[in-house]
Amino acid sequence: MTTDCVFCKIRDGQIPSMKIQEDERTLTFMDINPINSGHCLVVTKRHAATIFEADVEDLMAAMATARKVAVAIQEALKPDGLNMLQANGQAAFQSVPHKGFDWKLVPGNREAIMKTGERLRSLLK
Amino acid sequence: MTTDCVFCKIRDGQIPSMKIQEDERTLTFMDINPINSGHCLVVTKRHAATIFEADVEDLMAAMATARKVAVAIQEALKPDGLNMLQANGQAAFQSVPHKGFDWKLVPGNREAIMKTGERLRSLLK
Repeated sequence: MTTDCVFCKIRDGQIPSMKIQEDERTLTFMDINPINSGHCLVVTKRHAATIFEADVEDLMAAMATARKVAVAIQEALKPDGLNMLQANGQAAFQSVPHKGFDWKLVPGNREAIMKTGERLRSLLK
Repeated sequence: MTTDCVFCKIRDGQIPSMKIQEDERTLTFMDINPINSGHCLVVTKRHAATIFEADVEDLMAAMATARKVAVAIQEALKPDGLNMLQANGQAAFQSVPHKGFDWKLVPGNREAIMKTGERLRSLLK
């Protein structure tokens, strides 16, 4: 299930990432093509390409994690707003797995991403 | 907490809605300004304007409900993709509560919405 999945490779350390949170069921890391400062990804450790394949307990754990991460972002960055998006299928901007990108990916400033990531990680400890 | 909240009024039946799901903690109804066919709103029954104010158990229940609703949408409408959005603050397209709308609200065809709602409701029984 995990051979071609970017998120599984990140989970397993085969692809480097700026991890800011990890627990039994979930993992959070910074997006390297951020739409906004603080853009990060909460994933379930168990592979699931869409909500339809995901275990409901994993999804609930991801929601609890997302709330913690949102609180950390609020504290660290004080944004005017915060969106959580859960995407399924290419027509819904899902870019992993991808054949082509459905939303415009713009590489972010790695240094700024790392700095924000460090701040969020410290708040999530 | 509930006096000016549209969602609380929908919950209490003071504003009519096409409800498709209800349980102890959550309620789901059709959006009358749909972005797409099947656009509906999963809310916690307990009032919370943002994720920061929401009870984590309520949020987890909302995620479990959202998965059920997503499965029903998939079954009923077979969309090419499905997005779940959780918005906080006006800068993040949150339109309830609102002073002005942050995403363009276009009234949908009520008859089509009701028809889709009936189909989803029957799948959620």
